[in-house]
Amino acid sequence: MRYNKVTPADIDRLKKICGAGRVYTGGKIHEDYSHDELHGLKQYPEVLVEALSTEEVAAVMKYAHEKNIPVTPRGQGTGLVGGAVCTRGGIMLSLAKMNRILELDEANMTLTVEPGVLLMEIIDYVTPRGLLYPPDPGEKSATIGGNISTNAGGMRAVKYGTTRDYVLALEVVLADGTVLEIGSKVVKTSSGYSLRDLIVGSEGTLCVVTKATVKLVPLPERVVSLLIPFPDLQKAIRTVPKLISAKQVPTAVEFLEREVILAAEDFLGKKFPDKSADAYLLISFDGHSKEYVDSMYRQVADLCLEEGADDVLISATPERHEAIWSARGAFLEGIKASTTELDECDVVVPRDRVADFLLFIQKLKEKYGIRMPCFGHAGDGNVHVYALRDDLSDGKWNSVLEAVFGEMYAESRRLGGEVSGEHGIGIAKRSYLLQDLCDGEKTLMRGIKEVFDPKHILNPGKVVP
Amino acid sequence: MRYNKVTPADIDRLKKICGAGRVYTGGKIHEDYSHDELHGLKQYPEVLVEALSTEEVAAVMKYAHEKNIPVTPRGQGTGLVGGAVCTRGGIMLSLAKMNRILELDEANMTLTVEPGVLLMEIIDYVTPRGLLYPPDPGEKSATIGGNISTNAGGMRAVKYGTTRDYVLALEVVLADGTVLEIGSKVVKTSSGYSLRDLIVGSEGTLCVVTKATVKLVPLPERVVSLLIPFPDLQKAIRTVPKLISAKQVPTAVEFLEREVILAAEDFLGKKFPDKSADAYLLISFDGHSKEYVDSMYRQVADLCLEEGADDVLISATPERHEAIWSARGAFLEGIKASTTELDECDVVVPRDRVADFLLFIQKLKEKYGIRMPCFGHAGDGNVHVYALRDDLSDGKWNSVLEAVFGEMYAESRRLGGEVSGEHGIGIAKRSYLLQDLCDGEKTLMRGIKEVFDPKHILNPGKVVP
Repeated sequence: MRYNKVTPADIDRLKKICGAGRVYTGGKIHEDYSHDELHGLKQYPEVLVEALSTEEVAAVMKYAHEKNIPVTPRGQGTGLVGGAVCTRGGIMLSLAKMNRILELDEANMTLTVEPGVLLMEIIDYVTPRGLLYPPDPGEKSATIGGNISTNAGGMRAVKYGTTRDYVLALEVVLADGTVLEIGSKVVKTSSGYSLRDLIVGSEGTLCVVTKATVKLVPLPERVVSLLIPFPDLQKAIRTVPKLISAKQVPTAVEFLEREVILAAEDFLGKKFPDKSADAYLLISFDGHSKEYVDSMYRQVADLCLEEGADDVLISATPERHEAIWSARGAFLEGIKASTTELDECDVVVPRDRVADFLLFIQKLKEKYGIRMPCFGHAGDGNVHVYALRDDLSDGKWNSVLEAVFGEMYAESRRLGGEVSGEHGIGIAKRSYLLQDLCDGEKTLMRGIKEVFDPKHILNPGKVVP
Repeated sequence: MRYNKVTPADIDRLKKICGAGRVYTGGKIHEDYSHDELHGLKQYPEVLVEALSTEEVAAVMKYAHEKNIPVTPRGQGTGLVGGAVCTRGGIMLSLAKMNRILELDEANMTLTVEPGVLLMEIIDYVTPRGLLYPPDPGEKSATIGGNISTNAGGMRAVKYGTTRDYVLALEVVLADGTVLEIGSKVVKTSSGYSLRDLIVGSEGTLCVVTKATVKLVPLPERVVSLLIPFPDLQKAIRTVPKLISAKQVPTAVEFLEREVILAAEDFLGKKFPDKSADAYLLISFDGHSKEYVDSMYRQVADLCLEEGADDVLISATPERHEAIWSARGAFLEGIKASTTELDECDVVVPRDRVADFLLFIQKLKEKYGIRMPCFGHAGDGNVHVYALRDDLSDGKWNSVLEAVFGEMYAESRRLGGEVSGEHGIGIAKRSYLLQDLCDGEKTLMRGIKEVFDPKHILNPGKVVP
C-alpha cells in the first residue's frame, strides 16, 4: 500500500476538526507517543490528534480516507506488541480524552463508557456499587478501548472468560468515517453475523471503537487466595489440570517462580509473604457463599498437599491480599528493572500442556545461556515468558532472540497452542501468527480486512498483512 | 445469483463421492426434508446427500462450487425459520449421520463431536461423568451443528450464556471445499480475527461445520426450581429486573401463562402441579453448595412475595422437576396442537423492557382479534410469541400476520431489542433483520458473505441477501 504523507494543509484541516489545541506535530509530540510498552520499536506519528467525540473521530477518519493517510488509534499505549505505534507514520488518533462513564444500567447490569476510560476507573466506579467487571488484566491503567481491541484476558479468565465475553454493544467508526451502532443491551442474540465478536480483538485494524456497553456481574461477597509453595515448578504446574478435572472452579490460578518474586520485591521495595520455595501456585476463589468458597479452597488445599506442595498459606484479609497481589502486579516491572532490555512471549497452550511448555523453556535457557523468567496463568494455559538481554551485544541479542522465539512458537504450535493469549498480535507477533495460520485462514482474515478497510488506512501492517 | 440445476451427471458424481445408498432424488426424498419445523415454507431439494465424513463434505462442496449448484446444510431440521430448507433447490447436505462423539478431554474440560450428534446425546454422555454442557435449548433432538449454526440459547442463558460462549474449536468446509481448522482447545486467545465467533450463528451461509470442540463445566451438585404464581403477567415480569438488580444469579427465569400451561397439559395428557394463577415465573438455581443455592432461592422467594406473588412452590426433587420442566418443554407442541397453523416471533429485548413488550402484545391481540400465546425467557429478555391462525381464511391470515409481525418487530426495535434471541434469521425473519440493520452493517455482512462464499452457493437467500 502507498500512503500520502501528512501535509500542512492536512494539519490545518485536522485543527479545524478538533481545535488547534489538540493537534500536535514535530517536537510537540511527547516521546511516549513514539512507542508502547514494547521497547525496541519506535516511530513517531506525523501528527497526533486527540479526539473528544465520535463526531471528531468520524471527521478525522473521513478526511484520512479521502487523503489516503494511515491512522493508528491509541488508548494509553500500554500494549506489548507495537499495536498502537505509528509504524507507517500518518495520524495517531488518541482516544484517551474520550474518557467519560456514560451510563450504569442496574436493571440490565450494563455499563456504557467511552473508550478512553481506564480499567482502574471502571473498578473504582462499579466496586462500591456491589458490581464486578470480571476481566482483570494486570495493567489497570490500560483503557477499556485498548482492552476491547486486544480481547484482554487477565487473571480471572479461568472462571469468568475474557473481554469478548463482556462486550454487549459497540459504537464504532469505520475507515471511511461511517458511524455504526453494533449490538445492543440484549444478552443473547442470533440476528445475523456477529460483527461485534469480530471487532473485539481486531486491534484497531477494522474500525475505531468510540463507545462500549459492557456486562457486569454481582460482586462476589467472599474472596480467598491461597499461596502454595512447591518444591519445583513442574510439580506446581502439573497439579493444575488435576484441580480442574476434580471439578474445582477457581477464579484465578497463577504460577510464580522465586526469581520473579525477588525481582518484584526489589522493584516495589516490599517483602513478599513467603519465598521459601522455588515455585508457587497462587489460586483465588470467589463466590457469594462463604461456606462454598471455604469448602472449595479447603479441597484445593488438600489436593495440592497430596500432589506435593510444601505448605498452603491462606489469604483472606485485605492486607495479606494486597501484599501478594501487588507483588503479582509488579512482576513485569520487576523483570524489566532487572535487565537492560527484554522481549516477551504471550503464548497460550491447552491447560494440560503448560508443564511441557515450561520444561521446553528450561531447555532453551540452557541451550542459549540467557535468563528467561516466566510467570502467568496456569489455569488458562497463558504463559508469559521473558527473554532478557542483560549484557549481550546488539548482534548476539538479535540472533539469540530470533532463535529463541522461533523455537518457542514452534513448540507452542506443536502443543496445540496459539500465538497470543491476551496481548494481541500487533506488529511484533505477526510473523509468528502467519506461521500458525493456514492459507485458508489468512485469505479469510485478509478478505475481512478488505471489507472493513479497503484502503488499508486503519493501523496498517498490524495483525493481518 | 443464477444457479445450475442438478443434472443426472451431477447425481452420478455425488453417488461416486458418497456411495449410491446415501444419495436420494425425486420420490426417494422423504417429505420431512422439504421443510423444517416452520410450516408454511415447503421446498424439496433436487438431491439429498448424507455425508459420513469431512472428506465427503469437502468433495461435495468442491463439486457444487465448480458446477454452481446451491448447497443447504441440514442437521435434524428442527429449526423454526426455514434455515435448513432448500428454498433455491440444489443439494441438501445432511450432516445427521456424522454423529460420533470423538473425544472427552477431562484435563481441558472439552468435548469434541461431529455435527450430527444430538443435544440429548451430549447430555446423556456428559451428565454421568459429572459434567455439564450449559446451553439448554428446549429442543433436545436438535443437532450440535444446528445449535452452533444458530448460536442456540435456551433456558440457562441467564447464568451461562449461549452456544457461542462454549465453542472453542471448529473444523469447517468452505464453499470451495477447503477444509479449515479454526480455534483450538485453548480457553483464551488474542491471535487474529475471531473467525470462530463469526461462524457461530452464521446459519450455514459461510461454511459447513464438520467437527466442533466445546467447553464443559462441572455439573452443579444442587439444582432447585421455584414455580411462583402471580395474579397477573405484568406483576410477574416486572419482578425479574428487580431480582437481577438485587444481585441474584438464577440459572433460568421463565415466564408462563395459564393458557399455555393448559395447552401443554392437553398435549402431554399430564397435569401441571399448579394452575391456580394467570401467570407464573419458573426460576431455577444451581450451584456446588446446597447452602448457597438454598439461601439464594429463599431470598428470591421472599422478594417475589414482596412483589405480589401469590405463593412459592419449591421443587427440589427429580419427580417434581420433571413435572414442571416436561410441561415447559412441551409448550410449543401444545400450542401447535391447539390451532390450525401458527407463526412465531423470537425477539429479544433488554431485560427491563420485557414487561412493556408483553403489554404491547396484549394490545395487538385485542386490535387484531387473534390468539397470541407467549412464553419465554424473562431472565434474558427473549420472548416467544405465537400468532395462531385458528379458523381464519387464507387471505385474512396472511394480511393479519403481516400486520401483526410488522408492528411487533417495530416495537422490539423501539425498545432496543433485536430480531432473534436464539432461533436465527433463516429466510422467515430476513426482512425484519434488514429493517433493523443500518446500511453500514448490511454492507459489512454482505462483504463477509462474499469473502467466504463468492458464488453464494452456501444456503443462498438466508440471513444476508
